[in-house]
Amino acid sequence: MKINVLTTFPEMFSPVTDQSILGKAGEKGLIEVNLINIRDYTLDKHNATDDTPFGGGCGMVMTPQPIFDALKSLGEGIKAKPILYMSPRGKVMDKALLDELCEQEEFTILCGHYEGVDQRVLDHWNMREVSIGDYILTGGELPAMVLIDAVSRFIPGVLGNDESAEDESIYSGLLEADQYTRPREYEGMEVPEILSGGNHHLIKLWKLKESLKKTAYVRPEMFRAWLDGEPDLTEFTKAERKELKALIDELLELDKKILE
Amino acid sequence: MKINVLTTFPEMFSPVTDQSILGKAGEKGLIEVNLINIRDYTLDKHNATDDTPFGGGCGMVMTPQPIFDALKSLGEGIKAKPILYMSPRGKVMDKALLDELCEQEEFTILCGHYEGVDQRVLDHWNMREVSIGDYILTGGELPAMVLIDAVSRFIPGVLGNDESAEDESIYSGLLEADQYTRPREYEGMEVPEILSGGNHHLIKLWKLKESLKKTAYVRPEMFRAWLDGEPDLTEFTKAERKELKALIDELLELDKKILE
Repeated sequence: MKINVLTTFPEMFSPVTDQSILGKAGEKGLIEVNLINIRDYTLDKHNATDDTPFGGGCGMVMTPQPIFDALKSLGEGIKAKPILYMSPRGKVMDKALLDELCEQEEFTILCGHYEGVDQRVLDHWNMREVSIGDYILTGGELPAMVLIDAVSRFIPGVLGNDESAEDESIYSGLLEADQYTRPREYEGMEVPEILSGGNHHLIKLWKLKESLKKTAYVRPEMFRAWLDGEPDLTEFTKAERKELKALIDELLELDKKILE
Repeated sequence: MKINVLTTFPEMFSPVTDQSILGKAGEKGLIEVNLINIRDYTLDKHNATDDTPFGGGCGMVMTPQPIFDALKSLGEGIKAKPILYMSPRGKVMDKALLDELCEQEEFTILCGHYEGVDQRVLDHWNMREVSIGDYILTGGELPAMVLIDAVSRFIPGVLGNDESAEDESIYSGLLEADQYTRPREYEGMEVPEILSGGNHHLIKLWKLKESLKKTAYVRPEMFRAWLDGEPDLTEFTKAERKELKALIDELLELDKKILE
């Protein structure tokens, strides 16, 4: 996968893209992050890539010319492939977008700065505005890195054999249960007994219960969406399903009380 | 403001914290990002900071000892100040959290890696789990940088005099109108005439209408929340308010059709 990134701060990327899982994916040739410095394409005599907004208002707006020329340098075909603009005005990145992107051979990300980018850039290049969340950041570089990291985990070969991006709790609709590792006792605090018991069926039941509690407390809307999906619990015994049902009812009751 | 960051990848931060607005805030002494390498505190003979999870499952879990000792190195008072753990299990970062954090003199962020961190760390240190969105990333470093960037914009003096973090559209409940800058015509595409007309009242009305359309299309739930807040439109004339009301009704009708 080739990801073109148009930015005025290319030096921000390598310490992140060289690290850890992304770094290994790059070495294995699974992902190529092609950094393009927008400033290299400006024809402005002062090397500017931005100007004051029409209609007033604070901040600066990125001008069309350098971005148009940087995109043209990527060749004819680039417009037919996804071009994303990182922006708080966009749809918030979700699993559906990640699924779509991880099937692309190439896509392009534009990182804005200042107050934004001239709308003609977005319109002419059919850019999709993508947000990573409802907060304002200084530029699109961190959001682009977040998107690249999130997408890369779905590319076959990027994660180790024993891991799977699909298995991650948030994509299955629940928050993960608490995790514990050695030592069994640390400063008087012990690991829950069930986890070291070795009964994998009971551990699975315990983890699901913990996930349900965590999700209902922290993200009640996510908990309700999971319930609406009519989750498959057939791997559990009749008695266990009864237990789960009782817990779910209790959590729904609690949720109702919070809302009141 | 002093932000302590516990990480196993401290080298990921400087290219971001040195840049742009964050870099300037650091130079002015408004923000100090104190990077602490968790690995410096491990007593493990192989220098490990993680181990296999109790109860099975893939991935590794960060062990308590290095994190406990790194936190203790920050002094007695640190536990009374906020300690955040960046995690997809947390509450999603919002304006309320940013408002709270920007009033702190000091707070601490723990960046996890692998499958997560031993729950005893979170429990003992009363950590708050904070998420930047519903997606899985390789580690907590990018989320920590996103949080630091978002918070820093609310610290007095960080933004220029003509800018205000509060004014940003997303915090006022609507997405921003399209932006345009010079040249007035680029490759045959023109800037909307109203924006260069100089009538600031009409520009404001135009921007609000564009914001309403954009928000209703991209984020219908945000549009409805804005309406529920009974926005103050008294700066507009009676005729203009009627126009706005007609547009809002039209957008609500469209929204209903999409839902059907």
